[in-house]
Amino acid sequence: MRNLIIASTSTLHQGDYLDYLLPELKNHFASTETIVFIPYARPGGISHDAYTEKARQAFNTIGKKIIGLHEFTNPIEGIQKAEGIFTGGGNTFLLVSELYRTKVIDALEEKLKTGTPYLGTSAGSNICGLTMGTTNDMPIVYPPSFRTLGMVPFNINPHYLDPDTNSTHMGETRETRINEFHQFNPQPVIGLREGSWLNVKGDKIILKGNLKARWFTTNRPAIEVDPETEINTLLT
Amino acid sequence: MRNLIIASTSTLHQGDYLDYLLPELKNHFASTETIVFIPYARPGGISHDAYTEKARQAFNTIGKKIIGLHEFTNPIEGIQKAEGIFTGGGNTFLLVSELYRTKVIDALEEKLKTGTPYLGTSAGSNICGLTMGTTNDMPIVYPPSFRTLGMVPFNINPHYLDPDTNSTHMGETRETRINEFHQFNPQPVIGLREGSWLNVKGDKIILKGNLKARWFTTNRPAIEVDPETEINTLLT
Repeated sequence: MRNLIIASTSTLHQGDYLDYLLPELKNHFASTETIVFIPYARPGGISHDAYTEKARQAFNTIGKKIIGLHEFTNPIEGIQKAEGIFTGGGNTFLLVSELYRTKVIDALEEKLKTGTPYLGTSAGSNICGLTMGTTNDMPIVYPPSFRTLGMVPFNINPHYLDPDTNSTHMGETRETRINEFHQFNPQPVIGLREGSWLNVKGDKIILKGNLKARWFTTNRPAIEVDPETEINTLLT
Repeated sequence: MRNLIIASTSTLHQGDYLDYLLPELKNHFASTETIVFIPYARPGGISHDAYTEKARQAFNTIGKKIIGLHEFTNPIEGIQKAEGIFTGGGNTFLLVSELYRTKVIDALEEKLKTGTPYLGTSAGSNICGLTMGTTNDMPIVYPPSFRTLGMVPFNINPHYLDPDTNSTHMGETRETRINEFHQFNPQPVIGLREGSWLNVKGDKIILKGNLKARWFTTNRPAIEVDPETEINTLLT
């Protein structure tokens, strides 16, 4: 039993923090009064307090109370007793390092397997895959492992970006990077465009939002996947 | 004594591989007949042979012979006996993993300290910094450390990209990422735009090419640095 929303981004262009997802979140966290927020990814290096406040304000509009995981003396216990959990975006290397350092990673994996409602955005979505090997982030700290929660049997690439055909910049495209990943790793990768999310309920994994997603495997060219597709059907 | 060219990119938009650098390289490798090429970064996952062939063709036009490091039975010896060394771009995580796996990393550091002429492009430049923590690449493999050669007393960000003010994409800008890096790491970072390179001769580090570079430190806002600046003057 799993019950997750795995979102590409927290914020759409010209939108406010989480606003496009709030109707969905109201439903997702319907039976949850309090949500534990994991602020470890610290976007732009902001403090745990400041980041938690941002999440608090957004969830306040749908009547949910937010507690920052850093506010618990024992963060493992904070996870174990949580009614709902939200991991915000930022830097995935930092997030994963902190999840290992605090030993929250195993508690989180166990907890999510019991069906506790979870929301991840960006880095918080990345960690739902088998590894963090398809993050877009800069390796600002060295985590003890790239292994992540494995809540879905593939890897996530959030903020998926199509090649800019007008660009004169010679850095690799996202698709090139993911193809490089597949030279060394067997698992499929889903590129989630901004505004897309995966709805994981039990064994079902459904693509949500208005946009298509891009699905990469080792042995075939990448394909476009329509909204409402059950991603498990691609795994055979 | 160090003698390095640390280039942002191998290839300019609408240019051929290394062509913009060839006049400089002819001079840099003037006393060198044979150059050992380190193909470990494997851009796009191409083979060591295919990548070495690409370097061979470019250096052939200035009369230099290329040998791939993978062609040596003992790659450490290959480095120790090299007259000149070139590390090509690709994936920095893969490059650093292979440098550690083959134990070439220490031999390379020792060798470059003796003044052997070196060229790095992109990932091959990244490794000249203190750590690989400011690479733009995807973490497709897990290296045993992010520590790199430390040929300059700061970190390199190749392919430095200015914020795209027209973009609707919500991923972080390069500047945001480097500022995040500075929340956890003390060393300065130089953002080298495509077409720029550092010329390291002994203790002197000069910015070359037509473009300015961007210099990031922990305690002041980033500044623009003119070509021909001696980078050591920024370190005080």
